[in-house]
Amino acid sequence: MGILVVGSVAFDSIETPFGRGEHVLGGSATYFSTSASFFTDVSLVAVVGEDFPEEHVAFLRSRNVDLRGLSREQGKTFHWKGKYGYDLNEAQTLETHLNVFESFRPCIPDAYRDAEYLFLANIDPELQMEVLNQVEHPRVVACDTMNFWISSKPEALRRVVAKVDIFIINEGEARQLTGQANLVKAARQILDMGVKTLIIKRGEYGVLMFSDSSVFAAPAYPLEEVFDPTGAGDTFAGGFMGYLANTGDISEAGLRQAIIFGSVMASFNVEDFSLNRLKRLGYREIEERYRSFKSLTHFEGIADGHGGALAPA
Amino acid sequence: MGILVVGSVAFDSIETPFGRGEHVLGGSATYFSTSASFFTDVSLVAVVGEDFPEEHVAFLRSRNVDLRGLSREQGKTFHWKGKYGYDLNEAQTLETHLNVFESFRPCIPDAYRDAEYLFLANIDPELQMEVLNQVEHPRVVACDTMNFWISSKPEALRRVVAKVDIFIINEGEARQLTGQANLVKAARQILDMGVKTLIIKRGEYGVLMFSDSSVFAAPAYPLEEVFDPTGAGDTFAGGFMGYLANTGDISEAGLRQAIIFGSVMASFNVEDFSLNRLKRLGYREIEERYRSFKSLTHFEGIADGHGGALAPA
Repeated sequence: MGILVVGSVAFDSIETPFGRGEHVLGGSATYFSTSASFFTDVSLVAVVGEDFPEEHVAFLRSRNVDLRGLSREQGKTFHWKGKYGYDLNEAQTLETHLNVFESFRPCIPDAYRDAEYLFLANIDPELQMEVLNQVEHPRVVACDTMNFWISSKPEALRRVVAKVDIFIINEGEARQLTGQANLVKAARQILDMGVKTLIIKRGEYGVLMFSDSSVFAAPAYPLEEVFDPTGAGDTFAGGFMGYLANTGDISEAGLRQAIIFGSVMASFNVEDFSLNRLKRLGYREIEERYRSFKSLTHFEGIADGHGGALAPA
Repeated sequence: MGILVVGSVAFDSIETPFGRGEHVLGGSATYFSTSASFFTDVSLVAVVGEDFPEEHVAFLRSRNVDLRGLSREQGKTFHWKGKYGYDLNEAQTLETHLNVFESFRPCIPDAYRDAEYLFLANIDPELQMEVLNQVEHPRVVACDTMNFWISSKPEALRRVVAKVDIFIINEGEARQLTGQANLVKAARQILDMGVKTLIIKRGEYGVLMFSDSSVFAAPAYPLEEVFDPTGAGDTFAGGFMGYLANTGDISEAGLRQAIIFGSVMASFNVEDFSLNRLKRLGYREIEERYRSFKSLTHFEGIADGHGGALAPA
């Protein structure tokens, strides 16, 4: 029941109002696989350059991530430089050095081709399709994307979306993809593209999950300290997919619990730079925060015929 | 167990991407009292001018709102002109004609002075304090404000906040009042000013409620059609206070249910211009949407010792 993730392993240089990190460990596949590793076995397909230190490889290995799909190429590792203001919802990209990632053509090792759970992190939708074609009978496929692909390769992206089960994007991307300001209408249009479950991330406002027959709203955990939102989306996806793969329960109830576990993981991740918080995270903390989400959102229902009690006495 | 509300009864001229309304019925006390009237008896203190039509008075009377505190003065009624773009979270004020509202000095009729529930809608905090001094032993006092008072009369506002039980403001106002970008820290600072319960409205993202010992997050109802957000905050407050006054239950559980009823009322209000949707709203719809909020937010808890299930198999 393990997960295969295809995405980036990278260096990030990040500036927030609370500090900065230079050449710290980052990348969508890194955040995803570290987060998912708390729930299930993960195999990773990505590329790094000659400058990628053994220390980071050892960390991923310590999380039991299968790295047979991590290739090392001549040249430098993908490096993203970004900055956040006090509005931590929006990153400002300062520099993007694709380096070895520029010629990345994901080749799925034979041992991974029967993966049951597949996460296509944010890469060129044409590459996402190549990956899909190499994986035999995945039970659940989820994918992410970004504004750059929505504007530069909308048709390729739509072909991917029509083939996956779960599409995970942020609010602005949902509006951009559909040209629809109303988020519910945008969601309906995206479901009409052929995806079964649509998850819309709203940063500090939480997550909405849409299917043909239901909508689920989960808040983000209200935190007093948010140091670095980098990787929150991939950490969310890792917790979400990790829980699904662990339980095998893809019913509406199972998907909702997975959303909360994803939100739990993301809430920890933003508490420190890079993957520092995930590195010192334990199972008990994950459980405790899941329960905090429960008490954060719980309210009593109303009995039938409560209507009488609504009217003025 | 009725409620007394002090605020504005006004004309609004509104433009949204979906249409426009000229000189339609508006005002904080109007929205509040109409919404609360679905739950309890409401008495209103406000002022209108000679131009205020009998038709609007008759509507409020039809909702059983006690209008002995509605005074009619020489001059014109308060008139607000505003505009919304596709981002319906933010109104742009085009014109504000205070008219008779400029010299409004709320005088609470004797018959209202023993009100148990009091809502101080968004007016000059010095006037809010005058109202507080005229009401004898209210059980629950809630108040609203706006950015204008936060910048022009911060000290007067803080004196009011220290005297009320429940403070209802929006996200930007919470940040403005405290100079604190992090909303949880801002909330703690506002609780330290002496208020017991702080409700932070986040527009289409819902509501957070803070007390010393708990946090509650409620989403807004995801709507396909949002025509006019005007009055959503006061409609929320009306449903919230109305439910509290109806049940008398101001426990944490009662406050949470009240938050959902407030959110239900606000979700209806934005579906049409002015108070048009509230005018045709029925109890059964209110109950149904409350239940929709329940299914929108519900997820299963986890059993003790679930941690084992989290670890990779």
